[in-house]
Amino acid sequence: MTEPNNQPQTSGKLWGGRFAEQTAASVEAFTESISYDWRLYRHDIMGSKAHARMLAKQGLIDDTERDAIIAGLSEIEQEISEGRFTFRAELEDIHMNIEKALTDKIGAAGEKLHTARSRNDQVALDIRLYLRDECATLNQLLTEVQKGFTRLARTNLGAVMPGYTHLQRAQPVLLSHHLLAYVEMFGRDRERIADCMKRINIMPLGSAALAGTGLPIDREFVAKELEFPAVTANSMDTTADRDFAMELLFCLTTIQLHLSRMAEEFVLWSSKEFDFIRIGDKYCTGSSIMPQKKNPDIPELIRGKAGRVTGSLVSLLMTVKGLPLTYNRDLQEDKEPLFDALDTVKASLSITAELLANSDFDTERMKAATYGGFMTATDIADYLVKKNMPFRQAHGVVGRIVALCQERDIELIELRLDELQKFSDLIEEDIFDVLSVEGSVNSRVSIGGTAEIRVAEALERAEQQLGIV
Amino acid sequence: MTEPNNQPQTSGKLWGGRFAEQTAASVEAFTESISYDWRLYRHDIMGSKAHARMLAKQGLIDDTERDAIIAGLSEIEQEISEGRFTFRAELEDIHMNIEKALTDKIGAAGEKLHTARSRNDQVALDIRLYLRDECATLNQLLTEVQKGFTRLARTNLGAVMPGYTHLQRAQPVLLSHHLLAYVEMFGRDRERIADCMKRINIMPLGSAALAGTGLPIDREFVAKELEFPAVTANSMDTTADRDFAMELLFCLTTIQLHLSRMAEEFVLWSSKEFDFIRIGDKYCTGSSIMPQKKNPDIPELIRGKAGRVTGSLVSLLMTVKGLPLTYNRDLQEDKEPLFDALDTVKASLSITAELLANSDFDTERMKAATYGGFMTATDIADYLVKKNMPFRQAHGVVGRIVALCQERDIELIELRLDELQKFSDLIEEDIFDVLSVEGSVNSRVSIGGTAEIRVAEALERAEQQLGIV
Amino acid sequence: MTEPNNQPQTSGKLWGGRFAEQTAASVEAFTESISYDWRLYRHDIMGSKAHARMLAKQGLIDDTERDAIIAGLSEIEQEISEGRFTFRAELEDIHMNIEKALTDKIGAAGEKLHTARSRNDQVALDIRLYLRDECATLNQLLTEVQKGFTRLARTNLGAVMPGYTHLQRAQPVLLSHHLLAYVEMFGRDRERIADCMKRINIMPLGSAALAGTGLPIDREFVAKELEFPAVTANSMDTTADRDFAMELLFCLTTIQLHLSRMAEEFVLWSSKEFDFIRIGDKYCTGSSIMPQKKNPDIPELIRGKAGRVTGSLVSLLMTVKGLPLTYNRDLQEDKEPLFDALDTVKASLSITAELLANSDFDTERMKAATYGGFMTATDIADYLVKKNMPFRQAHGVVGRIVALCQERDIELIELRLDELQKFSDLIEEDIFDVLSVEGSVNSRVSIGGTAEIRVAEALERAEQQLGIV
Amino acid sequence: MTEPNNQPQTSGKLWGGRFAEQTAASVEAFTESISYDWRLYRHDIMGSKAHARMLAKQGLIDDTERDAIIAGLSEIEQEISEGRFTFRAELEDIHMNIEKALTDKIGAAGEKLHTARSRNDQVALDIRLYLRDECATLNQLLTEVQKGFTRLARTNLGAVMPGYTHLQRAQPVLLSHHLLAYVEMFGRDRERIADCMKRINIMPLGSAALAGTGLPIDREFVAKELEFPAVTANSMDTTADRDFAMELLFCLTTIQLHLSRMAEEFVLWSSKEFDFIRIGDKYCTGSSIMPQKKNPDIPELIRGKAGRVTGSLVSLLMTVKGLPLTYNRDLQEDKEPLFDALDTVKASLSITAELLANSDFDTERMKAATYGGFMTATDIADYLVKKNMPFRQAHGVVGRIVALCQERDIELIELRLDELQKFSDLIEEDIFDVLSVEGSVNSRVSIGGTAEIRVAEALERAEQQLGIV
Repeated sequence: MTEPNNQPQTSGKLWGGRFAEQTAASVEAFTESISYDWRLYRHDIMGSKAHARMLAKQGLIDDTERDAIIAGLSEIEQEISEGRFTFRAELEDIHMNIEKALTDKIGAAGEKLHTARSRNDQVALDIRLYLRDECATLNQLLTEVQKGFTRLARTNLGAVMPGYTHLQRAQPVLLSHHLLAYVEMFGRDRERIADCMKRINIMPLGSAALAGTGLPIDREFVAKELEFPAVTANSMDTTADRDFAMELLFCLTTIQLHLSRMAEEFVLWSSKEFDFIRIGDKYCTGSSIMPQKKNPDIPELIRGKAGRVTGSLVSLLMTVKGLPLTYNRDLQEDKEPLFDALDTVKASLSITAELLANSDFDTERMKAATYGGFMTATDIADYLVKKNMPFRQAHGVVGRIVALCQERDIELIELRLDELQKFSDLIEEDIFDVLSVEGSVNSRVSIGGTAEIRVAEALERAEQQLGIV
Repeated sequence: MTEPNNQPQTSGKLWGGRFAEQTAASVEAFTESISYDWRLYRHDIMGSKAHARMLAKQGLIDDTERDAIIAGLSEIEQEISEGRFTFRAELEDIHMNIEKALTDKIGAAGEKLHTARSRNDQVALDIRLYLRDECATLNQLLTEVQKGFTRLARTNLGAVMPGYTHLQRAQPVLLSHHLLAYVEMFGRDRERIADCMKRINIMPLGSAALAGTGLPIDREFVAKELEFPAVTANSMDTTADRDFAMELLFCLTTIQLHLSRMAEEFVLWSSKEFDFIRIGDKYCTGSSIMPQKKNPDIPELIRGKAGRVTGSLVSLLMTVKGLPLTYNRDLQEDKEPLFDALDTVKASLSITAELLANSDFDTERMKAATYGGFMTATDIADYLVKKNMPFRQAHGVVGRIVALCQERDIELIELRLDELQKFSDLIEEDIFDVLSVEGSVNSRVSIGGTAEIRVAEALERAEQQLGIV
Repeated sequence: MTEPNNQPQTSGKLWGGRFAEQTAASVEAFTESISYDWRLYRHDIMGSKAHARMLAKQGLIDDTERDAIIAGLSEIEQEISEGRFTFRAELEDIHMNIEKALTDKIGAAGEKLHTARSRNDQVALDIRLYLRDECATLNQLLTEVQKGFTRLARTNLGAVMPGYTHLQRAQPVLLSHHLLAYVEMFGRDRERIADCMKRINIMPLGSAALAGTGLPIDREFVAKELEFPAVTANSMDTTADRDFAMELLFCLTTIQLHLSRMAEEFVLWSSKEFDFIRIGDKYCTGSSIMPQKKNPDIPELIRGKAGRVTGSLVSLLMTVKGLPLTYNRDLQEDKEPLFDALDTVKASLSITAELLANSDFDTERMKAATYGGFMTATDIADYLVKKNMPFRQAHGVVGRIVALCQERDIELIELRLDELQKFSDLIEEDIFDVLSVEGSVNSRVSIGGTAEIRVAEALERAEQQLGIV
Repeated sequence: MTEPNNQPQTSGKLWGGRFAEQTAASVEAFTESISYDWRLYRHDIMGSKAHARMLAKQGLIDDTERDAIIAGLSEIEQEISEGRFTFRAELEDIHMNIEKALTDKIGAAGEKLHTARSRNDQVALDIRLYLRDECATLNQLLTEVQKGFTRLARTNLGAVMPGYTHLQRAQPVLLSHHLLAYVEMFGRDRERIADCMKRINIMPLGSAALAGTGLPIDREFVAKELEFPAVTANSMDTTADRDFAMELLFCLTTIQLHLSRMAEEFVLWSSKEFDFIRIGDKYCTGSSIMPQKKNPDIPELIRGKAGRVTGSLVSLLMTVKGLPLTYNRDLQEDKEPLFDALDTVKASLSITAELLANSDFDTERMKAATYGGFMTATDIADYLVKKNMPFRQAHGVVGRIVALCQERDIELIELRLDELQKFSDLIEEDIFDVLSVEGSVNSRVSIGGTAEIRVAEALERAEQQLGIV
């Protein structure tokens, strides 16, 4: 009688017991994930160490085995980080590559590591650990970008520029007010990531394949070891769930969309027509044919990459559509869009911080652009309103004043008092105070308005929050 | 000399003062939003009333004017809600339609209402107020769906079914455990909406066109009137921002994705092959050609609509890409995807709640499906692990046991002890305890596991949280 | 003994024979499609008439029945087109509404119309017929837009402007060359639609529910009646297929993307900073607060709607993902994205044609913008290359010339010959010929280049193809 | 006096002439494309050789220079293909890497290669050449998949199975009919790619940066050399256009969607509940925890990747939105989604072909599934229609017959004639012919129907077209 449990595993896979045939090479190539999930190695090892400590505490392995496992994993981590580890596609993924190496290194104790867990909960743990770190990095990069805008706002405090709606000059504003708008946007991104973290930061291990395990594990011990504030509540949900990945992809998308808006403005402002900004030579590139060109490639690429990050979000949303519980292999497709979006957004934030530190505004030209375009027309309307003319009538009056100026090709400020008074006898000498750009800007003292007094307050608040002295 | 301010406004628009020509009819048709933004009428009026109260408090209008405005707006609201109001496309949007009707009704006081605000901040206010209410509705509908699952979990407590991974029978689980997985999912959706609400629930009015206003307004008073905990901090960001709309669209997308997963299962389970569920006749439809058909149309449509909601999200994300500050007319395209996604998700949740109340599980058939498929194989492995066999070896042993059963076309439970012992001498008489479905299910007592004791706890927790007695 | 076949149909549906309960009202509301598929009424009736003629030809109905059906359908068509028809949601869709009205009108003959067909193939026929007409409309609208660009190119032939890469002035080009680039783009859109039409224009009827029919029908007769060049080849594919809808949605997306690029340019060119274009007052709108504003709302909305059309495409792609054969109710979600995208693109094309006819270029200002910015730098490089300097060296030489000009804040044309010759002794007096904008433009005589001789040829070709005399 | 043209280029870039500062390392990392566009090397070299031959023919370089260039490029190609070439990120892209290596190798002649072209038209050429080859590969892979389905259809000709609508058993069909539905789908994919090829296969070189060139080039000679049937007509459109890339991405998306539908069926059919198919062990994988599992990973991954390919499409669509003419750096983001989608779809097609060759149907089980479910109910209705009962009445009659069977829990075939006749006296002895599965299937002889005679014809047609003997 042959000894069944001494037979070599026919298929050579860790899961191959019942399989009669080897996996086809093309199948290995098609299904492997090690070419990208090797990134998770630190977090896989971190999770396995905590798991081993728990197994020992619960008596499922002994302390010697635990120590061997932990030491072996530390060695493997070092080998990988030093580029001395050979990943093997036939071992499919990072989990199997590490477990196999561990068993090769320490023998039977290694074969005990996978006790009471499945790759289904293991990969959930790894990604959550990984994304937790990435969220911290994103928060830091967002802060750097906020600092960049804040510093520019400080440097240029007092400078005026046209505020645009519909890309038409609308009302004069402070450049610093414009810059601080981006501090708000990226602030919301930080909030969203913090909220997403609450849902990432829950410990999934112990859900096993889908149903939990009958082995006497201690999930809360593992959670504590890995600094998770909570454990997941339903094992089937746990192995089926990729909400946290979708949510982070959405957060990444809004970041890149905010960057795309800033990038659009940098491209516009770099044009000869606007000419509001000088991006340092180091942050521009040239043309292979036109020697005079200096192109705003960085903002263009940032803007273009908004499509890429959104594409990654769509990718995962569509993959999840219509999947029954619990784990389906489709979910393996969660990682590449996540990794690509994280790389893209981190690189974009990082280069943005540099770009901000290497750009100068031509505030003279910005100021010049506030003249012309009747940008203080609203101020006349508000002037009339203060004198009790209903707003709609005031709006109409000013519309006609503007029409006259256009006809005569002059600016509002060039009209004489008697000419103005033909439109309304409420108009008096003090009208000329509200027609100046500075007067207009500084009048807007409502909370959140562009008056220098408000912007200075907002700037100080931002500096304090960001820890800029 | 003509009196300019008595001239009729050439273009007939409230903004038409400087325009020489009438708007083309095709332009009105292309640019109008009243055909869909009429939905905002209650919130537009609510916002205008608060604005009027503030204007009066600040002395920008007198109390008589305020009272006339408020009374007029109340009348208009009633007219609209009773279908007696005629919306006019040439007045473009809900804001202009209401303001014009107000002025027609109360005269000059109506022309003062738009003092110190712009449609740019007005529409931001209206949408935020509208979405705030919608979030409350979504929360309630999600709760109803959670209750539906919870009630089914209670009714069927104890029933076993196959747990699936890769749509392969994997391990037996409790049906109630499966159902409670959905309670978790929709619970996360509620959390996400609550987080999104923090960013919706900020008061934008007073940002005016983009720069704030020079008129002496009190934004915090308006916020208090409308029960907003805070006001927006930067007027340019305020008029450019649609983050809250994108974020809610994302929340809606995840809800519909969760529904699509449930729907897939309902479709599968309604098939003759699974035959796990009976959807009430009222919730099925028939075929125009095949008289015997009873189709799970509701879940199919719910599943199909996951594409629609995701499409709405993509729509807005793409629209926002690359927009410079502040308001651009592109942003008018925020409303239809939002409205369509809200309608779709609300209808899907509502019908799901009904569907759950009108579906019965064939628990006998589910139980029968747990036999066959070697679903307790993992339990043998765990049995061996408890006897100190390394997991990987145990996994291999069981793989070979399964292969033998397949060869002989029998189930695990049909093997004799001596046959089992040929695979490992660790196997003893008590092996047969772990081979039963009930034994398997109830062994999985880890937190979040499928053992009845755990599921009963989870069920009680859910019932308490949902207020089910 | 009860007479089974005289019993009223319990559920009141045409398909209700085996149903014990009425459909819930909420289910009717959730599943009905009549609120949007009424649009198909002409095509549904057209298809039904052809079907009836075929049934009569094949002896499945007699000629009297056929005539009654056709007359009844004609009446119904007229009632609908005149707004006298009452659609009923409980009859679900356009097919059932019409069939029921027909039977009410003509009795038993009406009950024979659905012989040998199912809604599954009927709706496929209706949509194909509908889209066939829509493709013709799209082709016509695209042609109008091409004509608009061509006419502007004719009017402005000879006018120069900066050609941009990276939104930086790069090389001078003819405005007409720029405009004709759009004629190319929309030409490709027309080609794509023509290709898509080949796959739309195949006759699906006769596939019945999924398997074909045993009744002696003549599919090719129906195809001929409805002017389809071919019939579909596999009944299961026919009822499962929505490729043609996805493909048309893609064609619509590229059209709207092309429009979005044009729109971006119109917005840029309308800005004070570029100031290249005057859009007629009729095609602009104003501000509710800033009386001086004249906003390019039409192009902004067109640009914004690129998101919407793409969203519709994504919607259907995602809906189709993972659907097994054959018909699934998810596919009902094909119509609203299609209809919305068609409406959006048709409206956008139509208003674009008007916009083009109501816009004027400020060619003086465009010309002025070609000075400055060293736009003829490439021409110097080409000059040197013609004198046999390797291109890379020439590129470097000109880079240094440009750097000198920047340092001295002068233009290339302001350099003296001896100054130029310090950079290369290949430079001679004739260098000044290539430094002029007109010289530069007209030198680019390569096929597809911007020289006036080439552009004039291209313009004539376009005029001929578009039938402009 | 220094010799300006001997100065070292400060920035070290081929385009660096006017730049005062080195590019920042982070900028190089952010903007480089060599890490992915190295794939274009063969096509870049092929294009450059044709360009060099043209330059020589036109006298812009001499024959010696041409020969040196061509020999140098051949060497470089070999080095790259043998892995002996060092790509340098600071040289940005494949074009610059190759040009630099060429100049290093052959000196000044290398510096002449970029004469009369720009990277803007060069990259357009490279991608078009590359995609042309990829389209050929796709066509071949699609053919292989079609062959796989066709072979299975041949092998299983005659086998019956349930045809499904709404995943409910609807009418019996031939398995081969079902399989040939996929041959149709992938046939349409081939047509779409052929249509897309018409728009890819146009020669862009000679458009230079955007405006064409003043150097005396011969674009049609280059087109002929590279076997392009035509040259692009407008230089500005040429450098701005990525339609062909978007269109191919759409074609790839529909392929992957078709695969996702097949994959869904393979997953369903592999389930214990359906149990229609046996996928070879080589094409399945196991579980790390459940030894009995044999999972359909390949189809699951194929299905999941539909999200990925759609994400790539969305990515490029969004990137192109709102870009003004002509080239913007955003367009660099065209390549990675294209490459990833091509890789994904090619791998999915290839593995599908293998999967089809390694799967067997359990036709006994499929046949068994056609009994039960009243699948021949439509046949009774058609039987009554043939006897002149209006279809709607027949549909109602059969509905009631089915209801009776359900009540008594029997099949249609188990009813006695007298029982049937109570529902309609049109029913006679021959009713039992139409109640058999084979009778039902073979009755459906309409074109495209599932009768064996039709399917055999379709099969032969497919075999002929695919060259299967």
